[in-house]
Amino acid sequence: MIFTRPKPTSHAPDTSIYERRESVVRSYTRSMPRQFTRAESVWMHDNQGGRYLDFLSGCSTLNYGHNHPVLKQALLDYIAGDGITHGLDLHTDAKADFLNTLEQVILKPRGLDYRAMFTGPTGTNAVEAAIKLARKVTGREMVIAFTNGFHGMTLGALACTGNAAKRGGAGVPLNHVAHEPYDGYHGPDVDTADLLERRLADPSSGLDAPAAILVETVQGEGGLNVASPEWLRKIADIAKRHGALMIVDDIQAGCGRTGGFFSFEGMGFTPDIVTMAKSLSGMGLPFALTLFRPELDQWSPGEHNGTFRGNNHAFVTATAAFRHFWSDGRFQEDIDRRAALLERRLDAIAVEFGLSTRGRGMMRGIDLGSGETAATVTAACFDRGVIIETSGAHDEIVKVLAPLIIDDALLSAGLDIVERSIREALSAPIGVAAE
Amino acid sequence: MIFTRPKPTSHAPDTSIYERRESVVRSYTRSMPRQFTRAESVWMHDNQGGRYLDFLSGCSTLNYGHNHPVLKQALLDYIAGDGITHGLDLHTDAKADFLNTLEQVILKPRGLDYRAMFTGPTGTNAVEAAIKLARKVTGREMVIAFTNGFHGMTLGALACTGNAAKRGGAGVPLNHVAHEPYDGYHGPDVDTADLLERRLADPSSGLDAPAAILVETVQGEGGLNVASPEWLRKIADIAKRHGALMIVDDIQAGCGRTGGFFSFEGMGFTPDIVTMAKSLSGMGLPFALTLFRPELDQWSPGEHNGTFRGNNHAFVTATAAFRHFWSDGRFQEDIDRRAALLERRLDAIAVEFGLSTRGRGMMRGIDLGSGETAATVTAACFDRGVIIETSGAHDEIVKVLAPLIIDDALLSAGLDIVERSIREALSAPIGVAAE
Amino acid sequence: MIFTRPKPTSHAPDTSIYERRESVVRSYTRSMPRQFTRAESVWMHDNQGGRYLDFLSGCSTLNYGHNHPVLKQALLDYIAGDGITHGLDLHTDAKADFLNTLEQVILKPRGLDYRAMFTGPTGTNAVEAAIKLARKVTGREMVIAFTNGFHGMTLGALACTGNAAKRGGAGVPLNHVAHEPYDGYHGPDVDTADLLERRLADPSSGLDAPAAILVETVQGEGGLNVASPEWLRKIADIAKRHGALMIVDDIQAGCGRTGGFFSFEGMGFTPDIVTMAKSLSGMGLPFALTLFRPELDQWSPGEHNGTFRGNNHAFVTATAAFRHFWSDGRFQEDIDRRAALLERRLDAIAVEFGLSTRGRGMMRGIDLGSGETAATVTAACFDRGVIIETSGAHDEIVKVLAPLIIDDALLSAGLDIVERSIREALSAPIGVAAE
Amino acid sequence: MIFTRPKPTSHAPDTSIYERRESVVRSYTRSMPRQFTRAESVWMHDNQGGRYLDFLSGCSTLNYGHNHPVLKQALLDYIAGDGITHGLDLHTDAKADFLNTLEQVILKPRGLDYRAMFTGPTGTNAVEAAIKLARKVTGREMVIAFTNGFHGMTLGALACTGNAAKRGGAGVPLNHVAHEPYDGYHGPDVDTADLLERRLADPSSGLDAPAAILVETVQGEGGLNVASPEWLRKIADIAKRHGALMIVDDIQAGCGRTGGFFSFEGMGFTPDIVTMAKSLSGMGLPFALTLFRPELDQWSPGEHNGTFRGNNHAFVTATAAFRHFWSDGRFQEDIDRRAALLERRLDAIAVEFGLSTRGRGMMRGIDLGSGETAATVTAACFDRGVIIETSGAHDEIVKVLAPLIIDDALLSAGLDIVERSIREALSAPIGVAAE
Repeated sequence: MIFTRPKPTSHAPDTSIYERRESVVRSYTRSMPRQFTRAESVWMHDNQGGRYLDFLSGCSTLNYGHNHPVLKQALLDYIAGDGITHGLDLHTDAKADFLNTLEQVILKPRGLDYRAMFTGPTGTNAVEAAIKLARKVTGREMVIAFTNGFHGMTLGALACTGNAAKRGGAGVPLNHVAHEPYDGYHGPDVDTADLLERRLADPSSGLDAPAAILVETVQGEGGLNVASPEWLRKIADIAKRHGALMIVDDIQAGCGRTGGFFSFEGMGFTPDIVTMAKSLSGMGLPFALTLFRPELDQWSPGEHNGTFRGNNHAFVTATAAFRHFWSDGRFQEDIDRRAALLERRLDAIAVEFGLSTRGRGMMRGIDLGSGETAATVTAACFDRGVIIETSGAHDEIVKVLAPLIIDDALLSAGLDIVERSIREALSAPIGVAAE
Repeated sequence: MIFTRPKPTSHAPDTSIYERRESVVRSYTRSMPRQFTRAESVWMHDNQGGRYLDFLSGCSTLNYGHNHPVLKQALLDYIAGDGITHGLDLHTDAKADFLNTLEQVILKPRGLDYRAMFTGPTGTNAVEAAIKLARKVTGREMVIAFTNGFHGMTLGALACTGNAAKRGGAGVPLNHVAHEPYDGYHGPDVDTADLLERRLADPSSGLDAPAAILVETVQGEGGLNVASPEWLRKIADIAKRHGALMIVDDIQAGCGRTGGFFSFEGMGFTPDIVTMAKSLSGMGLPFALTLFRPELDQWSPGEHNGTFRGNNHAFVTATAAFRHFWSDGRFQEDIDRRAALLERRLDAIAVEFGLSTRGRGMMRGIDLGSGETAATVTAACFDRGVIIETSGAHDEIVKVLAPLIIDDALLSAGLDIVERSIREALSAPIGVAAE
Repeated sequence: MIFTRPKPTSHAPDTSIYERRESVVRSYTRSMPRQFTRAESVWMHDNQGGRYLDFLSGCSTLNYGHNHPVLKQALLDYIAGDGITHGLDLHTDAKADFLNTLEQVILKPRGLDYRAMFTGPTGTNAVEAAIKLARKVTGREMVIAFTNGFHGMTLGALACTGNAAKRGGAGVPLNHVAHEPYDGYHGPDVDTADLLERRLADPSSGLDAPAAILVETVQGEGGLNVASPEWLRKIADIAKRHGALMIVDDIQAGCGRTGGFFSFEGMGFTPDIVTMAKSLSGMGLPFALTLFRPELDQWSPGEHNGTFRGNNHAFVTATAAFRHFWSDGRFQEDIDRRAALLERRLDAIAVEFGLSTRGRGMMRGIDLGSGETAATVTAACFDRGVIIETSGAHDEIVKVLAPLIIDDALLSAGLDIVERSIREALSAPIGVAAE
Repeated sequence: MIFTRPKPTSHAPDTSIYERRESVVRSYTRSMPRQFTRAESVWMHDNQGGRYLDFLSGCSTLNYGHNHPVLKQALLDYIAGDGITHGLDLHTDAKADFLNTLEQVILKPRGLDYRAMFTGPTGTNAVEAAIKLARKVTGREMVIAFTNGFHGMTLGALACTGNAAKRGGAGVPLNHVAHEPYDGYHGPDVDTADLLERRLADPSSGLDAPAAILVETVQGEGGLNVASPEWLRKIADIAKRHGALMIVDDIQAGCGRTGGFFSFEGMGFTPDIVTMAKSLSGMGLPFALTLFRPELDQWSPGEHNGTFRGNNHAFVTATAAFRHFWSDGRFQEDIDRRAALLERRLDAIAVEFGLSTRGRGMMRGIDLGSGETAATVTAACFDRGVIIETSGAHDEIVKVLAPLIIDDALLSAGLDIVERSIREALSAPIGVAAE
């Protein structure tokens, strides 16, 4: 057994500082009540000697694992050399390196011609910038987002998010966004792109002419729902014909999570705008990017800004990650192989237990039917040293978001634990914890 | 002369990568068209051998200067030891250290009892969380913000921002916020707190009952307008009597910029909610915090979240900064002395040229009467090796935001250059560049 | 031939006063450029001796024809006797009579227990009151309306209206309303009630919990689309299960237009709220009514008011109409017989020309495929002395809204003209006017 | 004594029909629990033999008194002759007469060049049309309204209304409107037009560029506050310079209530848009009008419409009223004389009791200091046969809205009763009802 179980502790860890001083808004600490000290590659270590295999990866923020040595060394060198840490949006060596590498390693080989906008370094800021730009360029106000979409928590992005509990936090009505059914939402017999086309073509549908259609190719938070390339092409075409910009939110599905650097590669359409964040820095540093066609770059100087809009540490690690992982096709081959392994394993479990799987690439999960069962499974995994979480409208999907760099054998070993935990959960009487 | 002027270059620096790949939304690069390589303390260096005294400090993000050695070493050690870089909102050693230090060094000595919420690591995210919470707790929707206030660029925070050009970028109407006149807005004879009280007390004023009153004690972007303690106390009292929460946005004025750690210290009121960012990490790393009274901590788990909501690198440097600068009163004494020096120098210039000054603490400026004149001054300063920027509705205020740790003599030397540049600008025929 | 064609005029009527003083917003005058002087029963007379058969009936406002003698006499008597004309919402004899008759003649025989709210005397005011009440009672903000729905032109009702041209007139975004597909909108194979149920049952659909579902049983302006009783029962059930109020907007379809007094009679559900206007006064006087279950009557006094909220002249004529037409079942028998005649005639035309028909009761039309063809038909009808108009998203439906009291032979004669005009339009080369 | 007190009734009138069938939203019936049967001139009669002098006049809807014989006869003739009752917006003889008379009797003598738009026949519809048009023409969204303004109850007009209780009825946030302080709102030393100018001239004030400034010259519902001509001219000038349209809502103050036909006559400015309703028909029939400069008439046909947008009965009576009352200056002389009498009487009461008066023309009141006292006064008046109501944010103003045609002696006699009731209310111990 390759996992070190968390050692039995004679006393509970002292969490009083959190109770006194940290807001109850914290969430992951509730199902993973440990204090973590250090992490490397696929492993996290707590302050009681426990070691955990990370099948959460910061919700796809740590695609290259924790503290990857190449990225880490680049950052250490940069800091040691007094590289610019904070420079607002001034030109820096780190930024020039990043832009050049983005152009050479990412954009050119994929035939993409985008400009990069450094928004505030969080995904939600990138989405806010994207929809602002779409509204400015089109002169329209309405954005079409989709059922189960997740795009962030600031007011503009939250309006695009489907989850009622998150939306409720706004405290004001969320406007200027229509949520249309995502691919497959109404079952296999209803093509929801056709429904959308029907409404946009109808001047009396009540659906105002949209500035943008904002879509994830795989809905990371919304239950690992996958849009087909055909459907996405239809959406791209609908956007074009109706004068709207197509925005792909690639914050969770991008950076290799589904195989290619962008999740939409090879699908036969090119988004007008792409939002990136999460694994973009490669090391978990805050970083976000809004990419768009040069013709759309109609901003006035500073029209959208932010204090941390050029996070130079993240430029450094992102540049290193681009070079190390994306200069040739080997990393994508690794991902594809691991994704195939993951798919086989989840399919086998699903077949055995009559469940269904979801997702694409290294972003897959299994539908346990209820949030209660899924929570039982993830709790059992955690007890056995695997950090794993749920997704979906009812938190009913156990999702595997392993680091993309995980050793194949370790991936298998982790999946053994997931499988065992599912088996127990489905065998046990409801309400009785596994093990 | 202690400044090294940027060397005359035989050829312009190559900026083609920015033109090809960076959005035209970039702003500071336009008045400071250099590429910067490294920085330490008060100095920034460009890639052509130029050295600049930084009187901008990342708009108050670098109160302790660039790459302060104590903070830098703490961060290098943390990274080298594979400390957790990204852990969503999981407990980490770095977070525990931060919270304990926040409690011991910052809150307890000031008699403050706040809980900390780690929002997405930008100021605008902290403001979004603050107004969400206020709306949730009060069940009301309207927020009162002030003329010339600046609170961020995501939709909820942007609605609270006064600047028309920024607001215009939204592309949708900005609602649920009323902008009331700030202290002194209608001249010395009109107490704008009384105007606000009148409207809130009147059930037919059309001003809906507010969830929050959101205020900066000094308006950093809005022209260095200063609210008096009397006015702020009135506002705090008005909020209380009318069932609204008082939110102090201390993102730019906090972390010592006006003397104390919080800009409202010693004023005789305690905000219900405080937003922090900019200099909070101490080293320019993305970091933001929303503090509030424990009774207000009514969030559901994850009701407001974000991928980078616990930036552990920032925890490390912020903790080091709290300990190094705020464990005793010496730093504040230094700030107060430098602020007095800054005040004297600006007042003298103002008296000589019939201008007026603005601001408080180490956040002061001089009103040049027009954005054109102010731009002439800042350009002349930059030519002489001083990075300095403008503020105000018409960019008419030249503002000095020197690092708080600046040597007194260096502060004087920098102000010599500012003074000389103002003198030239005001003597020269309009439209003729200085020097 | 029973129709008197408008006499050839040697000179065009003088319309200069309209051009000088009436807003270009006027619409019907464009296709019917006559000045009308008097009207009785099914006939309108112009000031050049022309006589017209009215198949428009004020868009279903004149279900009992023009100036019905019984109603007219009641009104003349009331005015001659100095009955209260305007009394705000004070009790008057006319109001008491109206309420008693409403109770005895309309509500009781149908087993309905509603309270009546006299809103401002236009349909849009009744709809505004209905959605206000639903929002107040449920504490929710979102209203579900339907594609092609038409509910009025004031801001709250306009947000519920589907037509893009009408919506565009708002000049502000129309919020707090989601437009869902009406019955049959996505073809016969998609049950749109199921689509709605799916979205409301899904906490991540992005569709906020609704205060109300606002529906027309037949969409008068939106193209005479008919909702089936099954679909409406499903909608009623969905509303109930999801805590929303079901509002039937019976402004155009009510007052006998579809047979019964209410358009939803006998369908197996009871709306929570019903809006009435148009033919309610019986004589074309401004009058509107919002009916609701007594438990929903949670208004504060005067919380929604309006200067003309009790139009006593309309009370008088409405009371007379209730008594004259609805005291027994004979009028409904007449309507049903005429509706069957209308259906047969339109079906026959449709079969002959490969067209499709729409509608229910005495609210039927024929789809001419394009607005241009439909306009050719209505123009030809007008030339022949029949006033008739179009409906639908593209004005492609020629709709017959004859007075319900029309003599069967006259209905047939009018339909002869419609048929002849269609025949000519479909035979003629495109663009060539008929006759 | 000229008043017939309501006879003592041996039994309370039967109001059960209202309790069973009329919504509790009714308001005036609470303070005037009688059932009225007929009315003529200044008198209303109840069904128990009581007679009341009407000092409410339908909130200024009955400026010519109840059922004025000239208007009544015109209407009787029109109805008897089968004049068009309902014709949508078709041309009718009645409409042509109205427009010609409007032009000749009202507009031309005052040098005004307006086009007339017949909106739905209620004031709120006229206001909705006015702000829609302003938004359309300017391409802006924000409307400036004023503290204590009242403009109607449909969503767009309600957003412009100041009263919190009315606003609360919306159930959604009321957006796109800023309420600025009305003339005198902040006392005699603060010129609120200057405050507005300051904010509009400041690009960082947070006040978006307005489409319109919507103002009443006297605030009828808001407490009879009067704007000075100087202030109104400033507002007109501010609107012009900042690209906004000035809308005067003359619904309550127009039609002679303040002396001239329009309340802004002779003040040295011309509104871009004027809204009219209430006394426009002259007889209390629903009727509303939006007037605007011909250059602003940029509507598309039917872009704003409504079933009852041409109320022909109201055309008839309005035309008769224009001719009878406004063909020469005698009526205005009568009004001015009565207004002077009213002013003297109220001033005398105010001086005696240390109260203050409000209003202008025949639209005046006296501030009783509290809603409780004012209610005591109006109740005592009603007991003595005078119908009178309150106004103001706290219902603290007893307002006299006598018919403009009232005989001078009768006006005096009614004011005797008001005076006596005030005297008693102010002498009596608090809480003890007068008489």
